[in-house]
Amino acid sequence: MDIRTPDWVKDAVFYQIFPDRFARSTRVPKATHLQDWGDAPTFHRYQGGDLLGVVERLDHIASLGVNAIYFCPVFQSASNHRYHTHDYYQVDPMLGGNAALRELIDAAHARGIRVVLDGVFNHASRGFFQFSDLLEQGEDSAYLDWFHAGPFPLSPYDDARPANYEAWWGNRALPKFNTDTLAVREFLWDVAEFWMRFGIDGWRLDVPNEIDDDSFWQEFRRRVKAINPDAYIVGEIWGDAHRWLQGDQFDAVMNYPFTRPCLAHFGARTLDHSMNEVSGTGHVDPMTTEAFAARMTEVASTYPLEIVQAQLNLLDSHDTARYLSAVGGDATAHRLALAFQLTYVGAPCLYYGDEIGLPGGPDPDCRRAFPWDDEGSWDMDTLTLVRQLTAARHACPALQRGTFEVLHAQNDLLLYARTHLGSAAYVVMNTATRAQVASLSALPAGTYRDAVSGRTVQVASGAVLDVPGRTPVVLIRD
Amino acid sequence: MDIRTPDWVKDAVFYQIFPDRFARSTRVPKATHLQDWGDAPTFHRYQGGDLLGVVERLDHIASLGVNAIYFCPVFQSASNHRYHTHDYYQVDPMLGGNAALRELIDAAHARGIRVVLDGVFNHASRGFFQFSDLLEQGEDSAYLDWFHAGPFPLSPYDDARPANYEAWWGNRALPKFNTDTLAVREFLWDVAEFWMRFGIDGWRLDVPNEIDDDSFWQEFRRRVKAINPDAYIVGEIWGDAHRWLQGDQFDAVMNYPFTRPCLAHFGARTLDHSMNEVSGTGHVDPMTTEAFAARMTEVASTYPLEIVQAQLNLLDSHDTARYLSAVGGDATAHRLALAFQLTYVGAPCLYYGDEIGLPGGPDPDCRRAFPWDDEGSWDMDTLTLVRQLTAARHACPALQRGTFEVLHAQNDLLLYARTHLGSAAYVVMNTATRAQVASLSALPAGTYRDAVSGRTVQVASGAVLDVPGRTPVVLIRD
Repeated sequence: MDIRTPDWVKDAVFYQIFPDRFARSTRVPKATHLQDWGDAPTFHRYQGGDLLGVVERLDHIASLGVNAIYFCPVFQSASNHRYHTHDYYQVDPMLGGNAALRELIDAAHARGIRVVLDGVFNHASRGFFQFSDLLEQGEDSAYLDWFHAGPFPLSPYDDARPANYEAWWGNRALPKFNTDTLAVREFLWDVAEFWMRFGIDGWRLDVPNEIDDDSFWQEFRRRVKAINPDAYIVGEIWGDAHRWLQGDQFDAVMNYPFTRPCLAHFGARTLDHSMNEVSGTGHVDPMTTEAFAARMTEVASTYPLEIVQAQLNLLDSHDTARYLSAVGGDATAHRLALAFQLTYVGAPCLYYGDEIGLPGGPDPDCRRAFPWDDEGSWDMDTLTLVRQLTAARHACPALQRGTFEVLHAQNDLLLYARTHLGSAAYVVMNTATRAQVASLSALPAGTYRDAVSGRTVQVASGAVLDVPGRTPVVLIRD
Repeated sequence: MDIRTPDWVKDAVFYQIFPDRFARSTRVPKATHLQDWGDAPTFHRYQGGDLLGVVERLDHIASLGVNAIYFCPVFQSASNHRYHTHDYYQVDPMLGGNAALRELIDAAHARGIRVVLDGVFNHASRGFFQFSDLLEQGEDSAYLDWFHAGPFPLSPYDDARPANYEAWWGNRALPKFNTDTLAVREFLWDVAEFWMRFGIDGWRLDVPNEIDDDSFWQEFRRRVKAINPDAYIVGEIWGDAHRWLQGDQFDAVMNYPFTRPCLAHFGARTLDHSMNEVSGTGHVDPMTTEAFAARMTEVASTYPLEIVQAQLNLLDSHDTARYLSAVGGDATAHRLALAFQLTYVGAPCLYYGDEIGLPGGPDPDCRRAFPWDDEGSWDMDTLTLVRQLTAARHACPALQRGTFEVLHAQNDLLLYARTHLGSAAYVVMNTATRAQVASLSALPAGTYRDAVSGRTVQVASGAVLDVPGRTPVVLIRD
């Protein structure tokens, strides 16, 4: 099968936003019983972020070199993370409703920023209309075949009794759709089409493996691509994804196999094991330069290049501790990892707040409010690095689409090449705490600029480079 | 206060439709697990009527002389009667969604038929979004102040435990809004405005007395009338309604004080007491002609004429046994009552199916499917009478807007006059089973036509009229 992924993704830098916590606009009326902005996150309370808040912060987002936003769920949902979908056709009123998404998409598109939404299609919520009908009518429900329900009565809220319906991981808050029912399939496909027509640029699919049905996703893809052939379809698949990456289902997946080695290697000295063990990543063992290089070479070739270039490479997410906290708060590890992410093959995805060194343990702590009013807390070195390297990436086709080739990997010193047609970039990572000397003999002679320090580097036969401890160097041919 | 009610209501003949049971269109996709059309109604099952079915039956509706439809609730709801509102901004998908209401309103308006919706604003449902958030988050809900809830946890579905929230008549399926909360008030007012802008012609308000707050309904009226000064606002108030009929809240109310005497008098011989005792009307004692005449005179003068002319006069509804069944199946009683309803002051409201003598006991039996495919079951005498008398009413301003004056009421013989400006009509009702002779000496001399029999009646000094048993005569000056 011919595999084609959207070209724009290959050149994209994503920014993942957890809508309740990114930014609040005064233009969206708020419920009264909210947490204060910046309070410690809890499982149940809202802080009142909204989509017009995102519109009002597009300057910041654009300043990061971001040209695509991936939103955690935005549809009407009785949960602060909005994975408990109540209505697939309505943006949550607390986020500003459909009108706010309209304004956001238009404003983002005007800046060349694309918008990808999170599609939570495996399960609904207890308040979802058709499930609500099951709860009200029991076996008499018109929608009896929309879920896997029975025997009756169901017990949606009383944990002391069996729920008597299938739910995601047995969580009765999340009744699983019966996607064998044609009406359910048509419903979910229609939702996908509705928002594509509304103007979104793609779907991030939540736990799509749990709709264990290739034909469902094949038809999903046909319908989405019929509306926009450039739509991005990226699945949340934590493990091997070959099944879905044959060209007829997803374009790519969330690249968690990228995530773990980045924690293991750059954070090797300081990993917070007890934190990771309860985070989405699970336990992470430290990894040497040699092992890391081998692993990332493998990750870069797991799938055809067309797919690898479109993978969503993330260091962390709403489902894991924040990278900075997972590595015990070591900002140098975080910056090295960001530099790797921004110079590796595949679309980097920054998790909101990472650019300013926002800390956070596992869910819900990784969902803190963005501290707009406390710039003193921002890590400006990290912010500067992100801006430098996204700029370098956008300026250098090799960083966007190039192959990944390790030239040296030993004793905490890593050197790799990215090359694409006539473009090339070379990255040196010194993960030791001491300065090291890197041989540049594998590089073509010429004048380079380090996108991080800004210094000019002359490469000739036998050239070497002093690399300070815990520092990345990104050499681009002048 | 200056009291003004919409002129169009004074000339209206309403038709009340229970949407799940009136008509099905093949153009609306249906859930699979429905009752067959015409099966005995149950509390929980759906038969799949929809709004495009109504569009496709507008010929029938118009043929009845109907120029206004009052719909039982149409918004998304997990109940076949749709009083359990799940989403106030969406027409139920099984009814065809908002697009079907758009088509219906446009088609109805093109025929001069107005559309009034049922507004259920006192309570929501267990699946309603903001209540769902309360169920999910408990005390942490952003919408804590939208309902009267606590202590926690709530028990929405388990009848064995206290619900711990206020609900309509203690029915935990129907959590009562906290209309002291500004956001709730604004929400409900916005719903009213949204559908007014959509193009409806008014609101029938469900149990509005249970929002015990004049200022709520005053603002409701201001907003509705600001969008359409001709909007009809009619409250479901079963008893005395002076509080709401001062000109600043409702235009009129559902005239149940009209209903009971009509059962009591025309059905005096055959009343089904055991049925009425469990129906919305409650026990009904037989009433003589004399008492009936006095009572209806009183009913016609309970409120200022401007209001009386706009009252919604009903013989039955989705909340009562059907009139025909309540009077033990006596079609002559039903026809006499229909004749009275169609010649009395105030807007007659026909309950769908009554025009063909559809029977039905109390809820849910009074909500049977309209038997489109079984014309043999239709009572054509009743249907003819309805058509004759709505035509007469539309042709005769006195029948629409005239005063109500009893000229004779004795021994099962009732004679009353309707007069308005130069127009006049005279109605004779012989409720005895034998023929009676009615004196027409109170009528101005001249030539009249009986709108029921079609015969011409000459009135001169000392004129009398033979009136067959159980028959109405409606004399209109030629």
